[in-house]
Amino acid sequence: MTTEPTTVREIRRTGPYPYTYGPHHPPIATVEPGERVAIYTLDAFENKMTPEVGSFADVCTYPYLNPQTGPIIVNGAEPGDTLVVHIHEIEPTRDHAVTGTVPYFGGLTSTNGDPTLQPPLEEQWLFLPLEAGGIRFDEKRVIPYEPFMGTMGVAPVIEAVNALTPDYYGGNMDCVETRPGNEVWLPVLVEGAMFFTGDAHASQGDGELTGVALEIPARVTIEFELKKGLEIKWPRIVSDEYIMVAGSARPLDAAARIAWVELIDWMVSDYGFDRMKAYHFIGQVGQMRLGNMVDPKYTMVAKCPRKYLD
Amino acid sequence: MTTEPTTVREIRRTGPYPYTYGPHHPPIATVEPGERVAIYTLDAFENKMTPEVGSFADVCTYPYLNPQTGPIIVNGAEPGDTLVVHIHEIEPTRDHAVTGTVPYFGGLTSTNGDPTLQPPLEEQWLFLPLEAGGIRFDEKRVIPYEPFMGTMGVAPVIEAVNALTPDYYGGNMDCVETRPGNEVWLPVLVEGAMFFTGDAHASQGDGELTGVALEIPARVTIEFELKKGLEIKWPRIVSDEYIMVAGSARPLDAAARIAWVELIDWMVSDYGFDRMKAYHFIGQVGQMRLGNMVDPKYTMVAKCPRKYLD
Amino acid sequence: MTTEPTTVREIRRTGPYPYTYGPHHPPIATVEPGERVAIYTLDAFENKMTPEVGSFADVCTYPYLNPQTGPIIVNGAEPGDTLVVHIHEIEPTRDHAVTGTVPYFGGLTSTNGDPTLQPPLEEQWLFLPLEAGGIRFDEKRVIPYEPFMGTMGVAPVIEAVNALTPDYYGGNMDCVETRPGNEVWLPVLVEGAMFFTGDAHASQGDGELTGVALEIPARVTIEFELKKGLEIKWPRIVSDEYIMVAGSARPLDAAARIAWVELIDWMVSDYGFDRMKAYHFIGQVGQMRLGNMVDPKYTMVAKCPRKYLD
Amino acid sequence: MTTEPTTVREIRRTGPYPYTYGPHHPPIATVEPGERVAIYTLDAFENKMTPEVGSFADVCTYPYLNPQTGPIIVNGAEPGDTLVVHIHEIEPTRDHAVTGTVPYFGGLTSTNGDPTLQPPLEEQWLFLPLEAGGIRFDEKRVIPYEPFMGTMGVAPVIEAVNALTPDYYGGNMDCVETRPGNEVWLPVLVEGAMFFTGDAHASQGDGELTGVALEIPARVTIEFELKKGLEIKWPRIVSDEYIMVAGSARPLDAAARIAWVELIDWMVSDYGFDRMKAYHFIGQVGQMRLGNMVDPKYTMVAKCPRKYLD
Repeated sequence: MTTEPTTVREIRRTGPYPYTYGPHHPPIATVEPGERVAIYTLDAFENKMTPEVGSFADVCTYPYLNPQTGPIIVNGAEPGDTLVVHIHEIEPTRDHAVTGTVPYFGGLTSTNGDPTLQPPLEEQWLFLPLEAGGIRFDEKRVIPYEPFMGTMGVAPVIEAVNALTPDYYGGNMDCVETRPGNEVWLPVLVEGAMFFTGDAHASQGDGELTGVALEIPARVTIEFELKKGLEIKWPRIVSDEYIMVAGSARPLDAAARIAWVELIDWMVSDYGFDRMKAYHFIGQVGQMRLGNMVDPKYTMVAKCPRKYLD
Repeated sequence: MTTEPTTVREIRRTGPYPYTYGPHHPPIATVEPGERVAIYTLDAFENKMTPEVGSFADVCTYPYLNPQTGPIIVNGAEPGDTLVVHIHEIEPTRDHAVTGTVPYFGGLTSTNGDPTLQPPLEEQWLFLPLEAGGIRFDEKRVIPYEPFMGTMGVAPVIEAVNALTPDYYGGNMDCVETRPGNEVWLPVLVEGAMFFTGDAHASQGDGELTGVALEIPARVTIEFELKKGLEIKWPRIVSDEYIMVAGSARPLDAAARIAWVELIDWMVSDYGFDRMKAYHFIGQVGQMRLGNMVDPKYTMVAKCPRKYLD
Repeated sequence: MTTEPTTVREIRRTGPYPYTYGPHHPPIATVEPGERVAIYTLDAFENKMTPEVGSFADVCTYPYLNPQTGPIIVNGAEPGDTLVVHIHEIEPTRDHAVTGTVPYFGGLTSTNGDPTLQPPLEEQWLFLPLEAGGIRFDEKRVIPYEPFMGTMGVAPVIEAVNALTPDYYGGNMDCVETRPGNEVWLPVLVEGAMFFTGDAHASQGDGELTGVALEIPARVTIEFELKKGLEIKWPRIVSDEYIMVAGSARPLDAAARIAWVELIDWMVSDYGFDRMKAYHFIGQVGQMRLGNMVDPKYTMVAKCPRKYLD
Repeated sequence: MTTEPTTVREIRRTGPYPYTYGPHHPPIATVEPGERVAIYTLDAFENKMTPEVGSFADVCTYPYLNPQTGPIIVNGAEPGDTLVVHIHEIEPTRDHAVTGTVPYFGGLTSTNGDPTLQPPLEEQWLFLPLEAGGIRFDEKRVIPYEPFMGTMGVAPVIEAVNALTPDYYGGNMDCVETRPGNEVWLPVLVEGAMFFTGDAHASQGDGELTGVALEIPARVTIEFELKKGLEIKWPRIVSDEYIMVAGSARPLDAAARIAWVELIDWMVSDYGFDRMKAYHFIGQVGQMRLGNMVDPKYTMVAKCPRKYLD
């Protein structure tokens, strides 16, 4: 973990945290494009899951889950713009990650959103030390520290959506690509964008299969940029290697199609393809990784290698 | 259409209509359980689609769709109660119904929520006279007037969800069972319940396949009842013949399972079945009709004949 | 149960039963269009589930399930024709129905085709007497005898598909509409059609939710008719009240769309609608009932009332 | 492309090709475990799509698609064993790849298996030269030659399934991992395994989005190995870096769950995890890539890095 310049402004939430992505929360800060800020976030359980806690139900109640830090106003952001979030660094503010299984929540169990008559899986909680090399899973295995923000997005126009759901405005995408070094592009829907983030993960497998990643509270250092007048429909992500789109829906098929179509339209608008040619090309070089398959909506990430585009 | 007693209180919305189901809208009326009220609703297009209008996009913009009348406070309703809505009558307040096809919206087209690269279906609008016998579709065909409220529900705790979506709190279920003579049971989630309704349909096929039913503004006469301390998870409907549950999700499989499981749990709690016996029994006598397959979430209605229960 | 004329030819399978719908089985009979025949079928468990049997796994092994009687050659049937099956009567040939729960099979459990890590539901078997009034479920409840053939279809061209799967050629549709009084239309794909049937049900709820209906061996009396040169894509059903299409796929959304599109195309070819008008009309008067949600593919039945068509 | 030792036995299909995976085709060769063989395959269109051909429908008719080379008997293979296919090399036997769009087939269009009322996408065919560096897509872009077999599998017990479908026995998985250097493990279901392969791809994006990859006829060099008495449920793949499972179903959610559960059970049986621990671990380190989203069943590939296992 590196040392940030002392001039970075720090943003903390005080008082009750928002559990929705919506335009009605009072802003906690106003930031200029180009200004580097460090945002402090709690983990998805509001830092309440400790070895002393018997069960999830003792400390967490739906819909008061996945507390977000925000909203943050980005100066000059107007509906019809795109907000680019440059993620610089994610530092844990605790010495361990938490993960576990919540009854009827996760990718390999029936859920309240798709129930069966079967009993739930056993509830188990793991408190895993953060070491120099990563997160210690057991005596033999250390998982590399590859952090990303599980949740990141902006306020929709009139809705307020629970912070467990990913959608066109971002939110709980739980895909590993919202990580340091990458840009996340979000559609600005209200004045000032009203940015939220939270749910930092020290690492996560594709799918966030147990429903819970390696959850950490964090200090995330970012910088905003505005692309004035650029309207996008779904979150885009840019890495050194790929342009990407995160589509969220259920079932995964719909999430995949959302991501592919937005990616193709991006290739058309910015890279000189016609739509059928982009379809042919992405059919042969596109990549798609599962984001999550546990949240109320699932997320798929479509990718096109940048080496073919520039 | 019958004449209501003159003592029925009439409730109208003035000013801008809510387009979300949420707890933040100022109430427009407070009603006692047992009091009969007549609520006036606009059609799903805010009565703006007329023969003079060229296209949907000229008068309607997402998310400003499906205006709701409400919220209405039900005196004494508290979280943990169930609100029973007795629907007495739905009278059209216009001489015709509107239906049509909106590009990329409907059950037999790709949509923004599940896109393809194909062009949209043609946009077509029909303005169909309401006659004594029903709705005149063409020279040869009159569809019986079998009205129901497409949208009916209560406010969730902290969320504000667009009025196109059906969910556990009701909303845009678009199932033909929310009709005169039936009771709709809704979970009370906030003080006073905060009831909304709108989107009256003069008639509709299962699935609301084109995405648009026979849309009418209406005067709907209802009466509230409270079941104190009864917690339900999903909207229930009671007719003379059936107990029913409306489950909403995507894909239809999940909507179906939600409805079946809640129906089985109702048979267990109120009718003396154990869970496996209820499963066996509903497997042999249950009925399931498609509600809608066009809204952001789809709705399936599971039914158990009351003759086996009482 | 009525007495059939003595002249009805009886068709029985001897030797091992087919467990697939395919063109490679030797025919067991050749029948003329217009000839009334009575076909004997075993139940889905080959009549092996008895009160003495401990568990399903002791007597049944995948893929040797759902034995079919057939193939029956229909004289004169050629690819490109439609085979119409007039169902006259279904008589049980045993004094009881069998139903039960098979581990990891059914509508409200995870399955091998969509697994979770949860334990299976309990295996339970019920042997229910057939009485004058119907099937006795328990002391208080008798379910009316409303029999239908769970499985009915023709051979595909080169494939041989397990008899648990419904598809474009018919097969295990498990929808209550393949019942006495109705016509089932099937696409002829090979010379002689090669008709199979089996899996009689004394009654069943929509969805065949436990995965098992009220299973009976039966004597089913039918008559074939040929519509020469009529090509259909999916099974059609005609009752006194409705024209119907049974679509089979997963998820239910796809099954529904298959059924709706074929129904609309039928309205276009035979009843003078253009495609958009049929879409508008079926959107307002169509009905859709769940067939089954347990087989490898699920089945939805789309209906248009005949009163609007003739 | 390397030169094979002259001693490699070559296997060619003569006469009509099988279009199904089934046990009824006469074998074309018998091979010993450990023997290296070179199998010649046609492309998915039986090499019939040429620049002179106007449209797909002129030369190809369902179900006569995706011709397979086989069945090949593996000496000593018995039901209950696992057949390991070591893929050594895939060499094109033509100087170009073919790709294109077939009406109502592909990942970003409605299909016969999930139809809408929309018109099809335009049919377009591309004939792309194979060069030293790869496949020339246009003046600016060359796609690296990264070949794999789209279709590979064994005969099911009694079924014969069209060669477009992937399932538990392998078949048309269209995932990029069935490539040189990797092992593909298949469940032996009949005596001699009856191995088929075909549908070689010079390269393909995740999802085979247009429904057609860079199709080539090929000479594929492989070697069989038998794991006696090892029963597996779904195809497994081993690379230098990963153990993998390919699950096939619809929707993608079900394909994903099949792959994850089989992967977890593999971690339990071979690598000392208990099931919940494997779930926790794979939740944090698992990877999942889309195989295809166009075939009658879709394919997802779940991966666990071997560095954590050995």
